[in-house]
Amino acid sequence: MKLVVAVVQDQDSSRLSTALMKNNFRATKLASTGGFLKSGNTTFMIGTEDHLVDKALKVIDESCRSREQMVAPVSPMGGNADSYIPYPVEVEVGGATVFVLPIEQFHQF
Amino acid sequence: MKLVVAVVQDQDSSRLSTALMKNNFRATKLASTGGFLKSGNTTFMIGTEDHLVDKALKVIDESCRSREQMVAPVSPMGGNADSYIPYPVEVEVGGATVFVLPIEQFHQF
Amino acid sequence: MKLVVAVVQDQDSSRLSTALMKNNFRATKLASTGGFLKSGNTTFMIGTEDHLVDKALKVIDESCRSREQMVAPVSPMGGNADSYIPYPVEVEVGGATVFVLPIEQFHQF
Ligand code: NI
Ligand code: NI
Ligand code: NI
Repeated sequence: MKLVVAVVQDQDSSRLSTALMKNNFRATKLASTGGFLKSGNTTFMIGTEDHLVDKALKVIDESCRSREQMVAPVSPMGGNADSYIPYPVEVEVGGATVFVLPIEQFHQF
Repeated sequence: MKLVVAVVQDQDSSRLSTALMKNNFRATKLASTGGFLKSGNTTFMIGTEDHLVDKALKVIDESCRSREQMVAPVSPMGGNADSYIPYPVEVEVGGATVFVLPIEQFHQF
Repeated sequence: MKLVVAVVQDQDSSRLSTALMKNNFRATKLASTGGFLKSGNTTFMIGTEDHLVDKALKVIDESCRSREQMVAPVSPMGGNADSYIPYPVEVEVGGATVFVLPIEQFHQF
């Protein structure tokens, strides 16, 4: 058994939950903030057999992979709105930081 | 030292807290949701010496063990209340998912 | 790679966040309560290379070390306020409980 700990952005959290369930992984979600990724993230704890760790990592990668997203910029506060051309901006979203921890014992009561 | 991580249902959380304290275990509770158990659960992190791991597991088992509970069913919405016989229903509650993790260092500052 | 898990008092949480960032450590914060320390604490998860574990521990120690603090006592409820001399009282605050866990795999997606 391994414990897979994955810190993901909130916006990918429900997609990851669904993908994990579809693949028969059971996860516990912990509310978390800051640090590894921009603010607003969720920490998943996924207990899994050794031979399924790679599959769990693949599910996390596919659900949360870091990618570019076009975002419409907010118009400048108090700026000259007439001369302002709102080019959409590319920002990086998503991404996951994942730790695979060894487990010495696993119990279900 | 080991780190015992236990995911338990909210309804067993305060009983487990009390039982751990009475047995001189120190625990940190993390708010958590979904997954291993039905929604509304708490994750306990319990740091303990190796030779007390079995005792910690026994305390968790006794406080949170999965068991049947009789629940009075809600009467059917818009149904014929006169012909409705509210048989109590047996549901499974409680239960704990427990991981015992190795610790390489333990510090108190 | 190691996973450093540190449970600290809320009052030291933002100082620790700042100190970790200044030292290029990345951390995820989990809301947590009770147990290891008096109520109101935060659990930091810090992923770090093996050779930087000692530095991380030093940052945690310096930001959160247990220390004495003078606190003005509240005047006694319903007591004789005229004869009450509010000696400040020394209480222990801060402190951190830290676990260093081995990591088998580390991934960034
Ligand atoms: Ni299998
Ligand atoms: Ni002992
Ligand atoms: Ni290095």
